[in-house]
Amino acid sequence: MEKYDELIDLALRRGFFFPAAEIYNGPAGFWDYGPLGVTLKNKFIQLWREHLVKRDGMLEIDGAQILPQTVFAASGHLEHFVDPLIECSKCGTFYRADKLLSEKLGRDIPESLSCEEFDKLIGQAKLVCPRCKGKFKPTKKFNMMFSFSVGPRADEIVGLRPETCQSIFLDFPRLFRICRAKLPIALAQIGKAFRNEISPRQALLRQREFTQAEIEVFFNPERANEFEKFDQVADYELVMQLEGQSKPKKIKCADLVKKKIVSSKLIAYYLALLQQFYEKVGLCDFRFRQLGKDEKAFYAIDAFDFEVKTEIGWIELVACNYRGDHDLGGHQAGSKKNLTVLDEGKKVLPHIFELSMGVDRSIFCLLLQAIALEKVGKEERLVLRLPPRLAPISVAIYPLLNKDGLPEKAMEVYGQLKGWFDVIYDSSGSIGKRYRRADEIGIPFCVTIDHQTLKDNTVTIRDRDSMKQERIKIAELVNWLGKKVCG
Amino acid sequence: MEKYDELIDLALRRGFFFPAAEIYNGPAGFWDYGPLGVTLKNKFIQLWREHLVKRDGMLEIDGAQILPQTVFAASGHLEHFVDPLIECSKCGTFYRADKLLSEKLGRDIPESLSCEEFDKLIGQAKLVCPRCKGKFKPTKKFNMMFSFSVGPRADEIVGLRPETCQSIFLDFPRLFRICRAKLPIALAQIGKAFRNEISPRQALLRQREFTQAEIEVFFNPERANEFEKFDQVADYELVMQLEGQSKPKKIKCADLVKKKIVSSKLIAYYLALLQQFYEKVGLCDFRFRQLGKDEKAFYAIDAFDFEVKTEIGWIELVACNYRGDHDLGGHQAGSKKNLTVLDEGKKVLPHIFELSMGVDRSIFCLLLQAIALEKVGKEERLVLRLPPRLAPISVAIYPLLNKDGLPEKAMEVYGQLKGWFDVIYDSSGSIGKRYRRADEIGIPFCVTIDHQTLKDNTVTIRDRDSMKQERIKIAELVNWLGKKVCG
Repeated sequence: MEKYDELIDLALRRGFFFPAAEIYNGPAGFWDYGPLGVTLKNKFIQLWREHLVKRDGMLEIDGAQILPQTVFAASGHLEHFVDPLIECSKCGTFYRADKLLSEKLGRDIPESLSCEEFDKLIGQAKLVCPRCKGKFKPTKKFNMMFSFSVGPRADEIVGLRPETCQSIFLDFPRLFRICRAKLPIALAQIGKAFRNEISPRQALLRQREFTQAEIEVFFNPERANEFEKFDQVADYELVMQLEGQSKPKKIKCADLVKKKIVSSKLIAYYLALLQQFYEKVGLCDFRFRQLGKDEKAFYAIDAFDFEVKTEIGWIELVACNYRGDHDLGGHQAGSKKNLTVLDEGKKVLPHIFELSMGVDRSIFCLLLQAIALEKVGKEERLVLRLPPRLAPISVAIYPLLNKDGLPEKAMEVYGQLKGWFDVIYDSSGSIGKRYRRADEIGIPFCVTIDHQTLKDNTVTIRDRDSMKQERIKIAELVNWLGKKVCG
Repeated sequence: MEKYDELIDLALRRGFFFPAAEIYNGPAGFWDYGPLGVTLKNKFIQLWREHLVKRDGMLEIDGAQILPQTVFAASGHLEHFVDPLIECSKCGTFYRADKLLSEKLGRDIPESLSCEEFDKLIGQAKLVCPRCKGKFKPTKKFNMMFSFSVGPRADEIVGLRPETCQSIFLDFPRLFRICRAKLPIALAQIGKAFRNEISPRQALLRQREFTQAEIEVFFNPERANEFEKFDQVADYELVMQLEGQSKPKKIKCADLVKKKIVSSKLIAYYLALLQQFYEKVGLCDFRFRQLGKDEKAFYAIDAFDFEVKTEIGWIELVACNYRGDHDLGGHQAGSKKNLTVLDEGKKVLPHIFELSMGVDRSIFCLLLQAIALEKVGKEERLVLRLPPRLAPISVAIYPLLNKDGLPEKAMEVYGQLKGWFDVIYDSSGSIGKRYRRADEIGIPFCVTIDHQTLKDNTVTIRDRDSMKQERIKIAELVNWLGKKVCG
């Protein structure tokens, strides 16, 4: 947990993120992003938009977070979006029955069991409160949606969306029509979702309010293999851990289709797009994990979790599910509207393949992978090895001394760069101290203005990772940095 | 209402925005942005970030939308964030007492009256239900916050923030410390806010869920005139309508300070920054309207509404309020934390000047100003004269015909431009029809590839506003467009 603890400390100390309403000791599971965190998140989102949404020609929407309860009745959330909750009859502590039983029994207890089944298992396992040894009250199903009413009459029940995708399903009929779209078509959305978690934990990993980026691909199931774009990725290898295997291996998309590991070219293509996005972002040690029958939702056909290896284990970043016609079928029944569309002259209720990405957890895991405590001579340095394209601040400008005209020259360089990059000017403390401050927030390049600069208009650029310096002309700075930061 | 109706029709037809959950006839006051709307909104936000946040060196945060009720007790929202609500005893329709009385009496009835005062006025005015002539039940105060509980015990009451600024006030102490900041310092945030409006209306203008961009400037009231940056705007003229005047006039910032129309250089500077931002965005016909005593909040010292003139009247886009120490004082008392900071060695509870911007309404008014129905010969064209920097799509690429190698050449040009601009390729229908489709969504430049292109690598560029065409070399396209779109 060394890196995890180091990261939380850094986040609080430098303001990447910190608990919301902390001066009021607000409830757990809500976090604010500070300035560095906002910039990092925005850069992540920009890459998502460029390398997934625009690259594939997806349609992006931005839907309301509050939706009528009728939507969640049709989507199944009212009934099924529940956690099994047990309360100690003695000290009143709440637990998730499945989690506590899984720990006690050393095997996975699915959350989908009935209350009666949980009570029976609790009896058999003689499960008592870990805190006070009290007995548990009977299991209840706790709905994780935040619901309330809207309007003065208080008779319209609404809920905060527990996932962003519902807006996409609802908007699909209009957008398909007005964009003169043809199947297959992908719709994307980035925004907040909300879940009343029983025990939020691990900072950005399990929050009650969080940012999702979801992509829903609508397609005709009969034509999911007529998919030209697949050729672009046929030879591209996915890191894939199949059901029953203990290690991931690389498998070409063409082979995934041929061996029927994925059910169509369309699905293989979007899995590839996703992995390419995370490669672009600079994530390491990832895998697609094929879910077993007991793990996947009842409607899921293909189901993979995109996971990343960190110090605290494999973390799920994206749920990839072929959901069949579960969603549009449910909303067709719930809204009594016809949601079929024409494809090659035939009416089709489109099937959906979903990529459901956790944005905050992606950022948290990128930070976890980036943070390092390193020996430098006899000292230690804390460094955040974020890819330059993601680092909140790309360049720091330092005058070597606060005299001899160096600050003026440094401000001149700062002025030249700030239209192009996220730059800071820092003149306080020794250069060594400035490097340490820059390293821990991941500034990839530090530019120092010294006496030689005044003579020949050259500066030193110090590389965060190698700690090596090189001398280059001021006139070449924008190009040099441009290649490293954007390239 | 011609433009307003035209805009709503366009928004639905081309997907700028449309009602949320429309297939379920969801509750009023919730809207989704479609693809064109998302891009427009993102470009607006990018300009906000560049020309306000970064230009001034503000710190941007992104806070949780759900905050504990203790925050809203301290901020005064629990008690004061209420609308006077009356219900017809016959047909059960709800109205805002102040609005209905204002209409009936032909003068402004402030919403802050007590229930008893409203009942008395209703009696005197013999106010009955406009729908069924029924009598009204006694006035009630209706709190506009959405509140609910969090956690399995349901004993932690939380609310959706009715304004984004509360997170900024709460985060200020930590950020001031860790950013080694000095007063004055501005914090900014863009995000959702929520109000349970009694009667949401006018599309994006009065929603129950909406996007705000708020800036809070923290400063030492004793040093608000020691503000060097003011010199940059001393001669810049604000469009200012003073209390009691019927028309706005231009007043230099230096004169606003000299004549004590604003209480400090700091406030004049931020008003100027705001107006410059809206000029950059391309808004016309705006004014700062100085609020009278009966209009401003009890804590407000300087109070101006930044408004824009549209077909449906003057619309408030930004509330500019010098809030004194109301906010930090309230949270200091509520949280029992010391929120003073050091300024020049002295402890100060900072005062706050706030710019509270409605993002959706800004976008809606920009669209309202941009839309036009024009005669072109004997025909009419609908055109959206959005500034090129805001237009969701900057360039359309058309092959004149779908043969003779023109589509291939056009795709080549499309490929060259799409890394630089938001571009579409459109080959369907006559060029005239394509222009009409482009005009109504505000595409400023249409590039046509014709037979001459194949001979000399030139294309025609047609300007949306003048409808004139000019011929230029493909090699010069990126530069030519860059100047027009980003310049």
